[in-house]
Amino acid sequence: MNYFSSQFKLGILGGGQLGKMLLNDTRKFDIHTCVLDPSNEAPCKIACNEFVQGDLMDFDTVYQFGKNVDVLTIEIENVNVNALEKLEKEGIKVYPTSKTLRTIQNKAKQKLFYVDNNLPTAPFSRFAYKDEILTAIEHQTLEFPFVWKSAQFGYDGKGVKVVKSHSDLEELPNVECITETLIPFKNELSVIVARNADGKVKIYPVVEMEFHPEANQVEYVICPARISKEVALKAELIALKASAAFKHVGLLAVEMFQTEDDDILINEVAPRPHNSGHHTIEASYTSQFEQHIRAVLNLPLGKTDSKVGGIMVNLVGAEDYTGNVVYKNIESIMAMDGVTPHIYGKKQTRPFRKMGHVTIVHENINEARRIAEEVKKKIKVISE
Amino acid sequence: MNYFSSQFKLGILGGGQLGKMLLNDTRKFDIHTCVLDPSNEAPCKIACNEFVQGDLMDFDTVYQFGKNVDVLTIEIENVNVNALEKLEKEGIKVYPTSKTLRTIQNKAKQKLFYVDNNLPTAPFSRFAYKDEILTAIEHQTLEFPFVWKSAQFGYDGKGVKVVKSHSDLEELPNVECITETLIPFKNELSVIVARNADGKVKIYPVVEMEFHPEANQVEYVICPARISKEVALKAELIALKASAAFKHVGLLAVEMFQTEDDDILINEVAPRPHNSGHHTIEASYTSQFEQHIRAVLNLPLGKTDSKVGGIMVNLVGAEDYTGNVVYKNIESIMAMDGVTPHIYGKKQTRPFRKMGHVTIVHENINEARRIAEEVKKKIKVISE
Repeated sequence: MNYFSSQFKLGILGGGQLGKMLLNDTRKFDIHTCVLDPSNEAPCKIACNEFVQGDLMDFDTVYQFGKNVDVLTIEIENVNVNALEKLEKEGIKVYPTSKTLRTIQNKAKQKLFYVDNNLPTAPFSRFAYKDEILTAIEHQTLEFPFVWKSAQFGYDGKGVKVVKSHSDLEELPNVECITETLIPFKNELSVIVARNADGKVKIYPVVEMEFHPEANQVEYVICPARISKEVALKAELIALKASAAFKHVGLLAVEMFQTEDDDILINEVAPRPHNSGHHTIEASYTSQFEQHIRAVLNLPLGKTDSKVGGIMVNLVGAEDYTGNVVYKNIESIMAMDGVTPHIYGKKQTRPFRKMGHVTIVHENINEARRIAEEVKKKIKVISE
Repeated sequence: MNYFSSQFKLGILGGGQLGKMLLNDTRKFDIHTCVLDPSNEAPCKIACNEFVQGDLMDFDTVYQFGKNVDVLTIEIENVNVNALEKLEKEGIKVYPTSKTLRTIQNKAKQKLFYVDNNLPTAPFSRFAYKDEILTAIEHQTLEFPFVWKSAQFGYDGKGVKVVKSHSDLEELPNVECITETLIPFKNELSVIVARNADGKVKIYPVVEMEFHPEANQVEYVICPARISKEVALKAELIALKASAAFKHVGLLAVEMFQTEDDDILINEVAPRPHNSGHHTIEASYTSQFEQHIRAVLNLPLGKTDSKVGGIMVNLVGAEDYTGNVVYKNIESIMAMDGVTPHIYGKKQTRPFRKMGHVTIVHENINEARRIAEEVKKKIKVISE
């Protein structure tokens, strides 16, 4: 198929910041794109060729949208999977597949998938309702503390809670969930694997993530991770194994824990461009967004090495501000060498909302880390 | 002024491939853009916030467009300068200024500017009509061979001719023109200077250009140029001097000849992102497009060092093909490490039409040059 002609159409489900960054690369290759998103103010509305406003969870909306394209991909997991399954049967190429998405959308299914495929992950239990957790605690088959995760629609830290006592339990919704053993870890790591339909695979260097303790959102992503070669290889191997198990096409971001004993456990995966790969725009030979397009179109994959060290800082809304967004001190961070802000274009800020990110690149990763801290101190996402 | 709000509007005159690449960076910073272009199929039509179809040489069209924005810039020099002058008087920030554009639009004025400012350039004569050239030859004040250039609207090699005999003269149009002494040179070099309204200046490393002998279009741009440190410094100094003389704001690409005696002579300048800076997207800490936006918005300028060596190969229409474009072997060049095609999105090809470019990056510039030759041999811009 000739992707570089206007006869070909690539569909993207979701029109948020990830889609916006994907569109830079479809524009670079002049690939015709159609985007479906519920918001008429979606960041993707400009820069795509065709924009459709509609509900990503509605069967008919997704099906009708998908019928109009040749290859369909996502920038968000929460889409109607039944529609994708029907589209696949009718010959539309859907990456990630409905099967992969069905597994990933439900955290209990995802955990069972790891167990079935001998992929290391923290021990867990599965519960249909909250009451079952109480029963398990009563019967001493579950002990405090543990990590509670809602099975469905967990995103960006919502739907995840460390439960230390009965009072923590009270706040939780009565939904299908899993509980995980709380395992002390040294580091959170991530590896992005790219795989095209021919089964060709490339992986990006292991990155290290630092989380904001309160918001449970990534604060710094550091590439390369400051870990031993052995630990890096172990993480890469597990990510490759996960990729092979899913037979996924596109990107698979594999988030992992490095335990105190240097074991690697899979936390969760995302079958799309990922926050832990944003630094690749400036730091890598091939950005994760270009790579995702190459993979879903079954083009040759690009080189995944880094040109320079890269750090990514999320720009999230400051705690006490809600309203029309202002990026305070953005000009002073732009005066620092190797610092690039990315503004997603959301007009309203609220506490901890993802409003953008800043990439810091430097030949020396420790120097990049120092600059990143300065960036973090200076820039504030506030309101007018 | 808060550029990062929807109250601010950046206007761009011209909606071609340079504008398209500028828009990637306005999108990255979420800066509101308005584009004016005569073609309803302009590459910029998507990705800008507001698109206006109209004649760039028409006073009213440019004036009305300019009244609607806060800062106005260009991606092509041939625009109505009188309209820009009126806009400047009414407080719109226009970069490059009408004065700079008036000087650059006319090659005779441009040459006189170099002479007035002690900037080295090849000796020349100015003629109002072709007949005056014949008279000069008769009176032996002009000798074959010489370079003929039309004073107005020269672009991409059109309007430039080496004249060796009376028969070469016959083909030339009867327009205002200059003739230049034909000076044997070793290299064509280019330096891009960025200057913001505060007068802060940064320069990119000197690049070396190889031209296609027939089409008189750049075939390879090589960064860094493979020249001695002394020659590089001389070229950088002259570029800085030119930038200061114009007091320009934005980018100024200064094209120069390195003579056989290692003298540097200015060939011509372009007050905008330039073909000799396309490799900066992949090779530099700050792309020329981001830098142009930083400069015209009077933001701090970004670091101009290279992360890796970069080569740019123009993708021009093959000689014998006209019609719906096909990029033959694009997939095989994408399989090479560090190779990125940029497709401008023009649907029709014709001989020597600029259809895109390919960037090749590598830590070792000689290795990049080797890969660039392979790319050049493989990819062909043909028609269906």
